[in-house]
Amino acid sequence: MSKLWQKGYSINASVERFLGARNSQLDNQLIRHDVWGSLAHATMLQHIGILSQDELTALTQALRLILQQAADGTFEIKPSDEDVHTSVENFLAEHAGAAGKKIHTARSRNDQVLVDLRLYGKEQLCMVSQKLTTLCATLLAFAEQHMHVPMPGYTHMQRGMLSSVGLWAASFAEALLDDERLLASAYEINDQSPLGSAAGYGVPLPIDRQLVADLLGFARVQNNVIYVQHGRGKIESIIVQALSQIMLDLSKLAQDLLLYTTAEYGFFQVSQELCTGSSIMPQKRNLDIMEVVRGRSHTMLAYQQQIMGIVCGLPSGFNMDFQETKQPFMDALDLAQQSLEICTLTLDNITVNVDRIQKACTFELFATDQAYEMMTQEHIPFRDAYRTVGKKVLAQLDQHNSAFPVESQEQLATRLQARTHLGGSGNPGITLDQQRLAQAKQQWQQRSDAFISAIQHLTGTTNIQIMEEL
Amino acid sequence: MSKLWQKGYSINASVERFLGARNSQLDNQLIRHDVWGSLAHATMLQHIGILSQDELTALTQALRLILQQAADGTFEIKPSDEDVHTSVENFLAEHAGAAGKKIHTARSRNDQVLVDLRLYGKEQLCMVSQKLTTLCATLLAFAEQHMHVPMPGYTHMQRGMLSSVGLWAASFAEALLDDERLLASAYEINDQSPLGSAAGYGVPLPIDRQLVADLLGFARVQNNVIYVQHGRGKIESIIVQALSQIMLDLSKLAQDLLLYTTAEYGFFQVSQELCTGSSIMPQKRNLDIMEVVRGRSHTMLAYQQQIMGIVCGLPSGFNMDFQETKQPFMDALDLAQQSLEICTLTLDNITVNVDRIQKACTFELFATDQAYEMMTQEHIPFRDAYRTVGKKVLAQLDQHNSAFPVESQEQLATRLQARTHLGGSGNPGITLDQQRLAQAKQQWQQRSDAFISAIQHLTGTTNIQIMEEL
Amino acid sequence: MSKLWQKGYSINASVERFLGARNSQLDNQLIRHDVWGSLAHATMLQHIGILSQDELTALTQALRLILQQAADGTFEIKPSDEDVHTSVENFLAEHAGAAGKKIHTARSRNDQVLVDLRLYGKEQLCMVSQKLTTLCATLLAFAEQHMHVPMPGYTHMQRGMLSSVGLWAASFAEALLDDERLLASAYEINDQSPLGSAAGYGVPLPIDRQLVADLLGFARVQNNVIYVQHGRGKIESIIVQALSQIMLDLSKLAQDLLLYTTAEYGFFQVSQELCTGSSIMPQKRNLDIMEVVRGRSHTMLAYQQQIMGIVCGLPSGFNMDFQETKQPFMDALDLAQQSLEICTLTLDNITVNVDRIQKACTFELFATDQAYEMMTQEHIPFRDAYRTVGKKVLAQLDQHNSAFPVESQEQLATRLQARTHLGGSGNPGITLDQQRLAQAKQQWQQRSDAFISAIQHLTGTTNIQIMEEL
Amino acid sequence: MSKLWQKGYSINASVERFLGARNSQLDNQLIRHDVWGSLAHATMLQHIGILSQDELTALTQALRLILQQAADGTFEIKPSDEDVHTSVENFLAEHAGAAGKKIHTARSRNDQVLVDLRLYGKEQLCMVSQKLTTLCATLLAFAEQHMHVPMPGYTHMQRGMLSSVGLWAASFAEALLDDERLLASAYEINDQSPLGSAAGYGVPLPIDRQLVADLLGFARVQNNVIYVQHGRGKIESIIVQALSQIMLDLSKLAQDLLLYTTAEYGFFQVSQELCTGSSIMPQKRNLDIMEVVRGRSHTMLAYQQQIMGIVCGLPSGFNMDFQETKQPFMDALDLAQQSLEICTLTLDNITVNVDRIQKACTFELFATDQAYEMMTQEHIPFRDAYRTVGKKVLAQLDQHNSAFPVESQEQLATRLQARTHLGGSGNPGITLDQQRLAQAKQQWQQRSDAFISAIQHLTGTTNIQIMEEL
Repeated sequence: MSKLWQKGYSINASVERFLGARNSQLDNQLIRHDVWGSLAHATMLQHIGILSQDELTALTQALRLILQQAADGTFEIKPSDEDVHTSVENFLAEHAGAAGKKIHTARSRNDQVLVDLRLYGKEQLCMVSQKLTTLCATLLAFAEQHMHVPMPGYTHMQRGMLSSVGLWAASFAEALLDDERLLASAYEINDQSPLGSAAGYGVPLPIDRQLVADLLGFARVQNNVIYVQHGRGKIESIIVQALSQIMLDLSKLAQDLLLYTTAEYGFFQVSQELCTGSSIMPQKRNLDIMEVVRGRSHTMLAYQQQIMGIVCGLPSGFNMDFQETKQPFMDALDLAQQSLEICTLTLDNITVNVDRIQKACTFELFATDQAYEMMTQEHIPFRDAYRTVGKKVLAQLDQHNSAFPVESQEQLATRLQARTHLGGSGNPGITLDQQRLAQAKQQWQQRSDAFISAIQHLTGTTNIQIMEEL
Repeated sequence: MSKLWQKGYSINASVERFLGARNSQLDNQLIRHDVWGSLAHATMLQHIGILSQDELTALTQALRLILQQAADGTFEIKPSDEDVHTSVENFLAEHAGAAGKKIHTARSRNDQVLVDLRLYGKEQLCMVSQKLTTLCATLLAFAEQHMHVPMPGYTHMQRGMLSSVGLWAASFAEALLDDERLLASAYEINDQSPLGSAAGYGVPLPIDRQLVADLLGFARVQNNVIYVQHGRGKIESIIVQALSQIMLDLSKLAQDLLLYTTAEYGFFQVSQELCTGSSIMPQKRNLDIMEVVRGRSHTMLAYQQQIMGIVCGLPSGFNMDFQETKQPFMDALDLAQQSLEICTLTLDNITVNVDRIQKACTFELFATDQAYEMMTQEHIPFRDAYRTVGKKVLAQLDQHNSAFPVESQEQLATRLQARTHLGGSGNPGITLDQQRLAQAKQQWQQRSDAFISAIQHLTGTTNIQIMEEL
Repeated sequence: MSKLWQKGYSINASVERFLGARNSQLDNQLIRHDVWGSLAHATMLQHIGILSQDELTALTQALRLILQQAADGTFEIKPSDEDVHTSVENFLAEHAGAAGKKIHTARSRNDQVLVDLRLYGKEQLCMVSQKLTTLCATLLAFAEQHMHVPMPGYTHMQRGMLSSVGLWAASFAEALLDDERLLASAYEINDQSPLGSAAGYGVPLPIDRQLVADLLGFARVQNNVIYVQHGRGKIESIIVQALSQIMLDLSKLAQDLLLYTTAEYGFFQVSQELCTGSSIMPQKRNLDIMEVVRGRSHTMLAYQQQIMGIVCGLPSGFNMDFQETKQPFMDALDLAQQSLEICTLTLDNITVNVDRIQKACTFELFATDQAYEMMTQEHIPFRDAYRTVGKKVLAQLDQHNSAFPVESQEQLATRLQARTHLGGSGNPGITLDQQRLAQAKQQWQQRSDAFISAIQHLTGTTNIQIMEEL
Repeated sequence: MSKLWQKGYSINASVERFLGARNSQLDNQLIRHDVWGSLAHATMLQHIGILSQDELTALTQALRLILQQAADGTFEIKPSDEDVHTSVENFLAEHAGAAGKKIHTARSRNDQVLVDLRLYGKEQLCMVSQKLTTLCATLLAFAEQHMHVPMPGYTHMQRGMLSSVGLWAASFAEALLDDERLLASAYEINDQSPLGSAAGYGVPLPIDRQLVADLLGFARVQNNVIYVQHGRGKIESIIVQALSQIMLDLSKLAQDLLLYTTAEYGFFQVSQELCTGSSIMPQKRNLDIMEVVRGRSHTMLAYQQQIMGIVCGLPSGFNMDFQETKQPFMDALDLAQQSLEICTLTLDNITVNVDRIQKACTFELFATDQAYEMMTQEHIPFRDAYRTVGKKVLAQLDQHNSAFPVESQEQLATRLQARTHLGGSGNPGITLDQQRLAQAKQQWQQRSDAFISAIQHLTGTTNIQIMEEL
């Protein structure tokens, strides 16, 4: 189909191939967002007198037809179409008469792709948050269930002090709750309407940017039209920075699970339905999924670097380099969601080998406790008690002294409960975490409700699904 | 001086060198933060009966002495000291008798370095925000002054539509105002007290973590003691992510200034006092500082990647890898501040060559305006008008048609003012920006006031400077 | 189809989705390489008595059938197949009877995917080098044609000393010739046969690794079986490091072309068939392709970071994380080739605006020449001459002194030819560059001839295309 | 001291601070390289008649004096000096009369810093290679000593097949031997003389670039003067790419050592003199150094990204951004050397706990062997044997079947020796590795001999140390 800008000469086919291929594939995920933007824009054009009511009606009908076809999977962006904006405008030119040739008045593909990505970002962030809170809830439930199961607390990968399985699991929940704040902050910055900035310098027409923003459910207009263009890649990277923090947490969870399921640790076992085998070694049950989460965490960091590296040092105004940020942005949103889901699934399929873990709680874990006892009972300053205990314990370790039986589960539980300070194993604050989680869920529900309600109002229908799962 | 953990054997000298050198240099910037943490910790130890009042007094006096020496530059961390925590404890052992050997009760260097870095982060973020708001104010003043100076608006580095110098400058101010939100969000997440997590698993002693947090002016206790350790590198990277967004904006500002001061553009001139020369070419006046801002933006991205790469995939609990995140974190805070300052200085020393800019506003900038005129006057749909104008203008460009005189400043100003929609050159919203700026400044003032007030109360003095410039 | 390792339980569908989707897509490009490896492996198994001659024949016929189907596009890896290795083994089990169940004796998918990627790497590097030498030849031809066209030589984006268009173009050719050495070095390290390392620890069977290496045309066996596994990701990243150097050069070429085709510089013009337009601004002809090369250079750096970040710090032995390096590796090879081609196309379509370039050669370019003249004629030491000239020229620049006419083309040509030292504009050494290029082409021809000849011998056919274009 | 380019106005102090601080610190390591370049340049200037013999003598004496002072630590670059080039020229102006004002004829700081960094690169690469070959030798000796100590071979961090401690150690030696090729390739590309390119566009003087290259011991002149500037950052990054490969290997070695020294694995023990302790936990002996190697591997990747990110997309010609690549380049060379040394030290201090390792060689490691036995003895195709064995072994594992005693050391040794193919545990090829190592050492000895010999000839002395340790 013809390019929007064609006027008498043809583009070289190699150039078309070089620029286009992946873009059309990505744009197939942006059809409905592009239609939403077009519906709001057309409504505004009618409002300021550039379109007649009839023209608006024709456009609205044609746009709804696209929505329907997109839902059915029959509206497709072909590589020759260049992008979704071209496909949509060409469709409108065909199905809405002269109005189709007017829809692009007072806008550019520059602000159109921006609005598509902002809407996509809002939608996807709602979905990320849903998966994040689900994992959080799973972790907190797991933590409650295993709060009193003792576990060695490691530093430098060496046994350090007594910890518990529950404390360990809850630590990831709290990390994710902090990430949720970053998601919310990214959502807020993304929640600005770019439409009306056109090619980046506005238009000499009396457009109503606020109306468009309201119709699309944006919290506000992104004001300065040049800043709107600066936002390309920038706001995407702000979102990906938040997602990177999630992946950091999951990478550690994955590494712990991989360690704790080795033959050497043997703390946890994961259902074999979640494990893959080897083509050569008959006995293997590998926790591939956690290795992949660990590996893809670096992929997420590479997305972050890619987007920011591309944008860094560009001159003001739209540059085609921006388009290269679309793929890592969209892939990043997908990756975060998949990873959150697979971690939830894994947590749901863990068996804790209490016996193995308890045996790992060997005597050296209590060297610090001994120093504290010496300090309180014998009134020896900590540093002196530390040195005395240290020499003794090191000598015992060097003699592989097995005179120290592992303490009983009751003894260990007593020790765990003696850490009564905030956030210690005897006072882990799960209820507090659950309150924070409930509050976060409620806030995201409000965000997605507002988003869906605006889009339903704009499209005049509640039949077509807006977000996949919300 | 002896290591805190020494008990009968000596560390290999190569190991000491490998681990230590840079760390002691960095730790010289953390002396006062370490002392603050120690003051709060000691107060709490006395509160729960581990220290006597006399011991607390002895420690307080010795700690104040360190503060004084640090301010005088006479307290220095030597490479053999391993780190600031060791220097401080050794000093206390020398100057506060047995109390010095008790100060480390119920804490570890793991939570100590965390509290130092959190306090450092709070202090430095206040300073970053101050420099950010200063640059913002400078940009907005520059924008107001040059709001009606026409400038070509570029896309793809080609002349696109009419813009103005003021609109351009204000776009960076709005970008920084969005960054300010990210700084605030990072500040909030950083504003959690880690003390009491000890080695990462709490202690079997009835410590009062809330009291310590209150004494240090933290907004809250970071609860789960294992999560506190997960926070190492994580919170640093959250801060550096916000700083990276600032550098993204500055890199674009720098690139624009470098372009606009070339012989070919000639839009701006920067005072020669800000330019460096060449050792071989007598005529050179180079805007090195903007090249360096552009280059160091990638350095900031490398810091972000470094910290997150180091932390990604580590097992739970303290790992020595964390220490490698200290340098990029501290350097990043320094880099952001220096870069903001140098940009403010540069903006303050720009002369706008109105004549050159106006001459660059050639006829093709108005091709879109022509299409709109054809559309409104001749009732031709936009896409048809676009094609008609396009063919004509391209032919003129190919003939290097010089029949188009540059419009007068008045004509251009009229065009600029005709962009009346939100954020357009006729309605740039500078007042709105200034209100946002004022609000941001006020919020940061509250943050730094709260911080300083807590520290003054803790140290019992208003004589010793807390933040360098606030 | 069933997994190779299935033995009585089914894998969770979410796990399958999480692990699989992209992998099967990538593996569709590895079918012929997997078949080649299988042919060599089967031949060796017959050689050591594990397969009968009849079994080998059956396998060979079935494998050739896969080759034929792959060439026709009818052999496809489906997501449920997990990977190409599974598809191929399942096909053999169906088409070659019991022999199909024996093919996997003494190998693992771990060494199979390694051999596929090594062969893919060899093939693709031959193709990269071909495109690199083509661009080199284009640059040198362009350089010869425009050797005497004067151009300002810039430093710090400011006019520095006299240069020429030819010298500029040849500089990129020399950069690429150095990159060719890195490609050759990467090819050499990649040219090691991994087969026989099996899961990474060899097999208790008397396999002949050298025979397999010879059959596949590898320069040598990669010896230590554990090192073979360390090679996963490592050798890929060595190749991507070389490709990154190519992209660094192209990014600079792209940036120069974008600058030199602005309205402000106006040195070059690129055929409009290579340019795209704007959906809103009728006059735009944008050199998108060079912006995309510039942007994708950062994508290449992200691939490099991604692969190395994933592999860094993994424990020895195969880890599933490795699989995540396949996509950036394959995409990187594709990206380098596309970018080289598009740059060749662009160079072939540049018109040099001699008049504009000459006008840009303003008097300050000759300030250094003046200092040298003063030095030789008046016997003034350079630093003194420099200062004297400097003050004069700066004053002239500040007065916008137009008393300096641009020199004539003859005068400028004389100056250019006066730089007679090695690599200067009067002695650019194009012939030398062409000799290096010819030698490089010959060496790559030998590499690809050896590769093709081995594969033809192995597959017993010259009908099926091996490399796409060689 | 005054800047070389000062001529009547002073630079703003903030600008000086922003540009300078770190640079002067780094340049203190480049004094002798700058002097060497100056000696060669001066000799050439006398050769072409720009300097008299007396002037050359005066310069030579003054330059030797700098060498002496640098060796004594009394020649220092101060921040106000801007860089080493300025310090040296100012010193010459003071100590060599008019000749000092002539030394900069026909050169620029642009080619001067390039020659300094190339010479620094050559010197440091010789030192890196020395430390690399030392570690290689240590690994091979360790491998020989422990070749028959059985060890589980892991895949996916799960026990896979039988391996040996020797095979494991030798795998790292082979990885480093491949890295040596990359170092050699980087050395070769770095071994080009940039002098004479001046500011990047040559000079209108009949300089003899080949003479300068010969005097400095460069393999050849880097021809095209613009390409010489493209080399800034590029050649540094080629070197850092090779160093990154080294760090990748060391990061895996470090991760393995950290795992194998946990309480859970217990395979190795490292002398406590290499371990650090905890400030709170008396029993801790942490292998910090390996954690730091693991962490700093990501630092190396960040250096790689930083340099390439800075250079990517810059316009042709010198840009000040280049200066920002100096620090990561020099730090990277330092980091690689320190890390190689600390790994050698660690390997030298490992005790292998044969008993623990043998106990870890549990029955499931031999599941593949069982399948092969069934295949050869019962003539069952591999895939069928695999499935039969698989079901049995998985059932046994699920029953925690302890009916399988660990095999005796003799049995295990027999199994190890049965892997007779190339690179297997029965045929590890250590002799071959040692031959490669010897050859590599010899080639680097030749490189450093040639380098030292040229510099000794140039400086006319054998008294002053050239490389620190060679």
